[in-house]
Amino acid sequence: MTSPIIVPVILSGGSGTRLWPMSTPAKPKQMLALTADATMLQLTATRTMREAFEAPIVVANARHADMIEAQLDAIGASPQALILEPAGRNTAPAIALAALAAGAGDKALLVMPSDHVIEDVDAFHAAVALALPLVEQGWLVTFGIAPDAPETGYGWIHVGAALADGVHQVAQFVEKPPLDRAEAMLASGDYAWNGGIFLFRADCYLEALGTYEPAMGAACGAAMAAALRDGARILPDAAAFEASPSESIDYAVMERAARVAVVPVAMGWNDLGSWDALHAISDRDLAGNAHSGEVLAIDTQHCLVRTDGVRLRLVGVKDLIVVASGDDVLILPRGRSQEVKKLIEAMKA
Amino acid sequence: MTSPIIVPVILSGGSGTRLWPMSTPAKPKQMLALTADATMLQLTATRTMREAFEAPIVVANARHADMIEAQLDAIGASPQALILEPAGRNTAPAIALAALAAGAGDKALLVMPSDHVIEDVDAFHAAVALALPLVEQGWLVTFGIAPDAPETGYGWIHVGAALADGVHQVAQFVEKPPLDRAEAMLASGDYAWNGGIFLFRADCYLEALGTYEPAMGAACGAAMAAALRDGARILPDAAAFEASPSESIDYAVMERAARVAVVPVAMGWNDLGSWDALHAISDRDLAGNAHSGEVLAIDTQHCLVRTDGVRLRLVGVKDLIVVASGDDVLILPRGRSQEVKKLIEAMKA
Repeated sequence: MTSPIIVPVILSGGSGTRLWPMSTPAKPKQMLALTADATMLQLTATRTMREAFEAPIVVANARHADMIEAQLDAIGASPQALILEPAGRNTAPAIALAALAAGAGDKALLVMPSDHVIEDVDAFHAAVALALPLVEQGWLVTFGIAPDAPETGYGWIHVGAALADGVHQVAQFVEKPPLDRAEAMLASGDYAWNGGIFLFRADCYLEALGTYEPAMGAACGAAMAAALRDGARILPDAAAFEASPSESIDYAVMERAARVAVVPVAMGWNDLGSWDALHAISDRDLAGNAHSGEVLAIDTQHCLVRTDGVRLRLVGVKDLIVVASGDDVLILPRGRSQEVKKLIEAMKA
Repeated sequence: MTSPIIVPVILSGGSGTRLWPMSTPAKPKQMLALTADATMLQLTATRTMREAFEAPIVVANARHADMIEAQLDAIGASPQALILEPAGRNTAPAIALAALAAGAGDKALLVMPSDHVIEDVDAFHAAVALALPLVEQGWLVTFGIAPDAPETGYGWIHVGAALADGVHQVAQFVEKPPLDRAEAMLASGDYAWNGGIFLFRADCYLEALGTYEPAMGAACGAAMAAALRDGARILPDAAAFEASPSESIDYAVMERAARVAVVPVAMGWNDLGSWDALHAISDRDLAGNAHSGEVLAIDTQHCLVRTDGVRLRLVGVKDLIVVASGDDVLILPRGRSQEVKKLIEAMKA
């Protein structure tokens, strides 16, 4: 049996500010080198630069086009399409654009956020290999991250009956649960986190979209039919695309479609949703510190200290997160990095 | 009885780095606005802009000449002499230069560091008034700060028998004591801190210097005899001045002279020897914070946060000192601000 061709679809739509001040709308998390010398986008693209994978399709905010091309070029990656969204409409329409750009046929799309960590790439590809036979049969597959904490900020998946070796039906999607529910799911062992990574045939996805979100399917089809093309760049028609409802792939398709499968996988996944998350996965010195940039720290413990400019000098602090970017310096205790949003709200006000 | 004329002598020689990164050799503590909109130098000069005081004599490092003139001009003060030391030789020679610039006669010199806080200016002047009669009789007077902590970094004065109302003989000078000695002195109630503020006749000071440090007196005399003058600026002859021994007024004169008196005074004195000291005397919000500059702080307690440039954003920290100046950011816990010197040593290495 020959392996089918897989088209990587890299979603670069995010402009989150949970890693502010490094991450900003002008240069969001996926454009940053946080865990290595390479950026999160580069690491994501590199993960599929191997046999049986075509060049990626990247769906991104138009303002990041030059930066994305430069970052991919720097690692020798050349996208087959760089789809520049005229507006954000969440993941379901973004993936529809990619499915259409891939030809809407039976090629398998491996849909990946551009800003997640996957430490065990072999485990990732093993999971993809397990999923492929069912994908060829028309199943929509999601990857279920082995959970290690009662996370209330993630979607969870109740793993159902086995369909094949390592592949299970999805018994239920559970959106962002309360803590007691998350604790129960973690304890049961029958649940996984929804990591936002998907594998399905382009035609199957578009068919499901036509069934459950026909207006979305029609808008995306019209936007691509009238798209401008400039080399690999594809600019969907703005008016047509903006007419699309805005919805995530989970709500629009995965939670409604009939043949939805999950491949549970432990692959060192992390969505780097906070500075605490970065500290947790970073290489640390014997005192638990992860420093980067012009940092001088004496007698510090369990700190994350990063700067891309100003010189950070610390003595005697512990359990502190300090991040400097440009003219902004963020300081908060470890364990409270979600509260960066309080600062951003206060700065807006 | 007419009040004698008093010449303020402001010593601006310090280039300490205990308030790094704000304080640097290029712009030391006395040039900074730390406790008010005015700089420490301006506050010091303002303290004697009143009846019975001549315009000040300022002794400073030559590199600060323009800055000193600009700061004094901004408050309407015009020094009668700005003596620019070609090299640092500690306080005894600096005061000798001022005594010579004042005419070496029987005018009283009120010698003051340029970078200390005195909150109760009335108490200060009351102490000066108490001292004046003995000064006219030839006594060398120091002001003894009412101590409120067992400080091991200060010189202490054993207050002896009363000479007049509020004026006492100095029984003994005690240099930087060990902690147990400091605690005993604090408990006894018979000791005061040596605040580095002095009052004496110019001729009496020079006479004592000639007795106890004749080489110093000769060097300073030669340096002033060959000085260049440019308006109020006086540039002592470098070769002559550099031949002077380097010594503090305490060691060179006060601890050796016969007629040395002390006026104990509680006047809200503080030498601002650390960021902790500044936090302690600053106006603070209800949560104990003293912030200044572009600071946004949410749920912070007992912090000192200052910046002259970058934007400091904090959430949820307590008992922290954060000071940003130019491209440098200092972060350390409250109570450990003396350890800034560890950073400075590490940066040199």
